[in-house]
Amino acid sequence: MEKIESTKNAKVKLLMELQTKSAERRKRGLFVVEGRRELEHCLEAGFELDTVFLCPKLCGDLELPQGCRVVEVTEQVYAHIAYRGTTEGVMAEVRVRERRLDSLEKIPGTPLYVVLESVEKPGNLGAVLRSADAAGATAVIVCDPLTDLYNPNLIRSSIGAVFSVPIVACDSTDCIAFLKKNNIKVLTAQLQDSKPYYDTDMTGPIAIVMGTEATGLTDLWRVAADSHIRIPMLGRLDSLNVSVSAAILMYEAVRQRQTLS
Amino acid sequence: MEKIESTKNAKVKLLMELQTKSAERRKRGLFVVEGRRELEHCLEAGFELDTVFLCPKLCGDLELPQGCRVVEVTEQVYAHIAYRGTTEGVMAEVRVRERRLDSLEKIPGTPLYVVLESVEKPGNLGAVLRSADAAGATAVIVCDPLTDLYNPNLIRSSIGAVFSVPIVACDSTDCIAFLKKNNIKVLTAQLQDSKPYYDTDMTGPIAIVMGTEATGLTDLWRVAADSHIRIPMLGRLDSLNVSVSAAILMYEAVRQRQTLS
Repeated sequence: MEKIESTKNAKVKLLMELQTKSAERRKRGLFVVEGRRELEHCLEAGFELDTVFLCPKLCGDLELPQGCRVVEVTEQVYAHIAYRGTTEGVMAEVRVRERRLDSLEKIPGTPLYVVLESVEKPGNLGAVLRSADAAGATAVIVCDPLTDLYNPNLIRSSIGAVFSVPIVACDSTDCIAFLKKNNIKVLTAQLQDSKPYYDTDMTGPIAIVMGTEATGLTDLWRVAADSHIRIPMLGRLDSLNVSVSAAILMYEAVRQRQTLS
Repeated sequence: MEKIESTKNAKVKLLMELQTKSAERRKRGLFVVEGRRELEHCLEAGFELDTVFLCPKLCGDLELPQGCRVVEVTEQVYAHIAYRGTTEGVMAEVRVRERRLDSLEKIPGTPLYVVLESVEKPGNLGAVLRSADAAGATAVIVCDPLTDLYNPNLIRSSIGAVFSVPIVACDSTDCIAFLKKNNIKVLTAQLQDSKPYYDTDMTGPIAIVMGTEATGLTDLWRVAADSHIRIPMLGRLDSLNVSVSAAILMYEAVRQRQTLS
């Protein structure tokens, strides 16, 4: 097994670039996963490992799939590459897997999609994925994203949901066409010209569509909507965090569907 | 008006200590608010300003209440004291205001309390306050807190809700006695031995009680509970962020109460 003892090693430099540069992730088709539990989630979901960086002293025993390249690093090198300090002892370069919209048609059950338009903060997208996993959402669709789906902050804040929840990135026009073709009701979250979310039927196939906290949804989506829904704001502030809003709306669908069944 | 031109000024040192040390906040009975909007929220809520640090070049016009001490700082000093960089131009030392449990009895309306036991992360508590403001919760009660209520991360993540939502810190025993005395139904969020939250009546006076993500609630609360409720987890992960859980549960109370009226 190859052993890396210097932080100046070429493989270490490439790993660091994958963590910090989205252009590098696109170019190489790889992203970085840190930690035992995250790596387990990632393997369970069928992602393919490229290179695993392992510090045996920190990591202990670990079962890895055949065929992936494993390199051993010293504690000092591990401390250099790791974001979370030396608590985990394992990092991996993992192959990006891109899903297309039509692949969602094969997922069984009544669709419950969350569509995010132009989401900016990777941490927010990760938090939405965590809520989507909990609510058993069919998929999260990210339209015209301003962040890439394999940003390290996104992976961290999703606590592994980035692997368990199907994600598609596409443009808004294609997404609307897909939803209309599949008879999925488009519910846009907006404060103006809307009714409380709990007065809306969510038992059939639906897509909950949310814009950014700052600017809301574009007209494209407002026009495409079957219903405009809002979360009543009963205090002084005028918005909720996007992952909190998404969770409230998804769990209303869960409630209606459970109560129905 | 006093003008401070050095980062070594004694007042600047005291301000920095207030930001970083909870012991200092306790000792002086003051905490720090940064930014125009936050300061407005804080004044609207009737908090009392002690000293305002103003950088006229950055801040522009600002209406301040009579009687507070205003000191002018240079851009360089402001950059040193500010957390958010130089976008705002104003910071203030504000007098801590402690609420007691029995003061909550005077707030009109059907009580909807959120009780957090041993919450650790200031950012989580701030996010719960933001959700509590949106859902129109009566108050947030923090039992046996491991963080102080005026931590700068808490104030930032609450986006001003730390001023608009009544907060009480107390120990769990006193809180349970208060809730029982006032006939407020105690609903504890827990996965074991519980029913889905939407099968629970929330139209009367209730307290939603939540533990930490890591260890959940103590037996004290489980025993005191009138109902054990859970948010069904339909994916791979086993928990939601505490502010997300709090929002889902509070908005179920909002939904039930609106549908009833």
